[in-house]
Amino acid sequence: MSKKQENFSEWYNELIEKADLIDKRYPIKGMDVWRPYGLATMRAIDRYIHEEMARTKHQEVQFPLFIPQTEFNKEAEQIKGFGGEVYWVTKGGENDLDVPLVVRPTSETAMYPMFSLWVRSHKDLPLKTYQIVSVFRYETKQTRSFIRVREIHFFEAHTAHDSYEDAERQIHEDVQIWARLAEKLCLPYILSKRPDWDKFPGAHYSVAADAMLPELKTLQVATFHHYKDNFAKAYDIKFEAPTGGHVHAHQTTYGMSERLLGAIIAVHGDDKGLMLPPAVAPYQAVIVPIVFKGKEAGVMDAARALANQIAAAGFRVHVDEREETAGFKFNDWEMRGVPVRIELGPKDVEKQQCVMVRRDSGAKSFVAQADAAKGLATALAEYADGLVARAWKTLTDNVHDVKSAEDAKKAVGIARAGWCGDDACGQKIQAVTEKTILGVPLDVAFGESFREETRAKLALPGKGFHGHCAACGKATTTPVHIAKTY
Amino acid sequence: MSKKQENFSEWYNELIEKADLIDKRYPIKGMDVWRPYGLATMRAIDRYIHEEMARTKHQEVQFPLFIPQTEFNKEAEQIKGFGGEVYWVTKGGENDLDVPLVVRPTSETAMYPMFSLWVRSHKDLPLKTYQIVSVFRYETKQTRSFIRVREIHFFEAHTAHDSYEDAERQIHEDVQIWARLAEKLCLPYILSKRPDWDKFPGAHYSVAADAMLPELKTLQVATFHHYKDNFAKAYDIKFEAPTGGHVHAHQTTYGMSERLLGAIIAVHGDDKGLMLPPAVAPYQAVIVPIVFKGKEAGVMDAARALANQIAAAGFRVHVDEREETAGFKFNDWEMRGVPVRIELGPKDVEKQQCVMVRRDSGAKSFVAQADAAKGLATALAEYADGLVARAWKTLTDNVHDVKSAEDAKKAVGIARAGWCGDDACGQKIQAVTEKTILGVPLDVAFGESFREETRAKLALPGKGFHGHCAACGKATTTPVHIAKTY
Repeated sequence: MSKKQENFSEWYNELIEKADLIDKRYPIKGMDVWRPYGLATMRAIDRYIHEEMARTKHQEVQFPLFIPQTEFNKEAEQIKGFGGEVYWVTKGGENDLDVPLVVRPTSETAMYPMFSLWVRSHKDLPLKTYQIVSVFRYETKQTRSFIRVREIHFFEAHTAHDSYEDAERQIHEDVQIWARLAEKLCLPYILSKRPDWDKFPGAHYSVAADAMLPELKTLQVATFHHYKDNFAKAYDIKFEAPTGGHVHAHQTTYGMSERLLGAIIAVHGDDKGLMLPPAVAPYQAVIVPIVFKGKEAGVMDAARALANQIAAAGFRVHVDEREETAGFKFNDWEMRGVPVRIELGPKDVEKQQCVMVRRDSGAKSFVAQADAAKGLATALAEYADGLVARAWKTLTDNVHDVKSAEDAKKAVGIARAGWCGDDACGQKIQAVTEKTILGVPLDVAFGESFREETRAKLALPGKGFHGHCAACGKATTTPVHIAKTY
Repeated sequence: MSKKQENFSEWYNELIEKADLIDKRYPIKGMDVWRPYGLATMRAIDRYIHEEMARTKHQEVQFPLFIPQTEFNKEAEQIKGFGGEVYWVTKGGENDLDVPLVVRPTSETAMYPMFSLWVRSHKDLPLKTYQIVSVFRYETKQTRSFIRVREIHFFEAHTAHDSYEDAERQIHEDVQIWARLAEKLCLPYILSKRPDWDKFPGAHYSVAADAMLPELKTLQVATFHHYKDNFAKAYDIKFEAPTGGHVHAHQTTYGMSERLLGAIIAVHGDDKGLMLPPAVAPYQAVIVPIVFKGKEAGVMDAARALANQIAAAGFRVHVDEREETAGFKFNDWEMRGVPVRIELGPKDVEKQQCVMVRRDSGAKSFVAQADAAKGLATALAEYADGLVARAWKTLTDNVHDVKSAEDAKKAVGIARAGWCGDDACGQKIQAVTEKTILGVPLDVAFGESFREETRAKLALPGKGFHGHCAACGKATTTPVHIAKTY
């Protein structure tokens, strides 16, 4: 297999197929087949999203895939943003459709005509909904599995509120949800408020979480948009205010996708294969029985008993009973990123112990079978801590405070520089650096309106902010993140 | 609300919206919006399907939505069967696509090009996969929510085997899976082997489960198809046999859809609303606190404590803390088909009891709070037994053995008559009766190849089979089911 550090793209493309996540040979470019192992991992991510949605009282809905052109065209910015990259259904059977149908690229224009029917009084607000569905983009850029595809496994939360402030509170809640999910995924990130020219089509402002991939380029993995009443005006979403009169609702969305899986693969994997976070690994541990001819039965029975014991404690565990050699199995499960391998040979059976081997460090520990569940819990926690520590170090080591656009260009990873807020200066910074302004760090952007502990949590350790616009040199208190992006 | 017995269609259409299952106002005919309560119910059905698939070692996959026309056209019967009712994607952005894309109406033509890559040796067989996805039909007939829609929530299992016999064993396993699922849904059904003219496009033979709806017409709710090597030849799915040489695989599919939910609604509901089977009800019990001004706190606290206790025993329970009257809440939860209502007033709190009311019979029982979980288990079991008994009685009361096509026409519900097997006689029976031949009862069709207990389970009680073809009068041992269908 290719080396991650030498050729990230090749390594990534080989790994995802060798680890049986997807099959890229489907006869449409940018549309992959989810194989059972890949789908199980994605479903585990989805499960946490469902849990977070339930916890924050969002309700799951499912809207149709198709959107009539007439509805799609109601919000001008959306057409501008997506019109060039949507798939069009123009025929049903042999008939040309009277109104062409857009295959949803995102669901604002499908949902909001219904929101307009659902929202009547302030008692109907906040309305908090979400769905996990496929969305479609006629992508003209180079595609890459999980990261830039034409059929996207997509999460989208859509909310409506009775005020600008309540919608902004929703954005803050979204950030908390994101932080908890990212913790499960052992995924480091930075949060930025995007510059105006880079906000979502139709949004008032956009916030995004970016992960850093091995080439030290950033990947947008979650977005949070405050729509103000922009869509509410286009789709007539109004409510009767307690003080009388009809007022437009304020709205937000929160989006994530299979990119989360792409980021996990890219950030944690090594030259032996995947390293899946314990929270989303289809198998958290695999027991490999070390059997010798004629002695299989005792070891196999012991392996199954051990698996039952561990499963009863709530872990996802699998016994590899295939006929292949132990060496083959070790490699195979390393490729698939199983956090802990449990070896069990005739001697272990005799001593009523087993050997736990961590996927990340290879660290071995001998654990009494009676303590297997406890031992596994420890190994998984240490393994997850290992993933987190390594990944966060890569991120924080590669954020550099710089003074000028020229320095930002030279900086490896994310540059942090001042920006006076002037569009021309922003464009100049992007032109000189050949990088993208990700935006203003969220702790700075939201300032006092953010709860203090959140602000502290989101702030990356600064090495000294220079306090001047990287383009014009004017004094400014506003830093921006600048990076190469996918 | 309309009465079920007087106008089933109106009753059904009103009920599904009043019970908040879906919203039919989406601006495309035949495409509904799944509301949270409806989606939660469907997801509960899906959950049992997932469990059954895991139990029978099927693996979950997900294939792309779009199928290139070139692949779609490889199997002639599929084009004939579906070509007239598929949606076509012909444009991406502003560009006309070189190869138009079919929006999947079912996934044979998406999956089998990949199966051809996945199946190499007999060791790769049986290959057992499934997916739960939306499929699309450009339906030209009158649409009806859950029953005939244009975007269909769909389950499809696809398998490949090394022999005709092994594929037939899969059909038998499918029937067992179906029987277990139908039990969870409290849903009566008959199983028939469809006549050749009514089999699935491309199939060697088709078996179907039909439910009986209130108008005593049948609704196809599950299908099982043996494809022989028909598709394997079209898509080149071959394996190296242990004896050498390459052999085409034999294949099967198993399909179900949101019609399962439609059938539950139609079969069990009454003029007060839904009656959901306990296995799939989003809430199995709802606690309605009976509160009076100034005394809310004690009752509310007791209600929440009771809910926690019941939830800890593994039941899905909800406390209705809304400000509406108890009467409003009773009606509302009856409309939504919650199996058991638990009333809790100040006197009940004093006596440390609660009142459990069954949705079907209205039967009340006073249960000590300490025994609430046990009491609920009993009430749910009795309720489910009630649903099953009533629904099976409606079915079996309406299967009539008849002698001639004329009698079959007059028969209310399902007629069972002889058929010599001749196509012309079959067509004559359909013409005279203005009904459809559902096919040969499965216990008869499979005969000895079916396990005895299965055969016995599937046989509907006969009232005397007449032994002659209903068209030509020739002696025959083969009965068929004949009914009006949706």
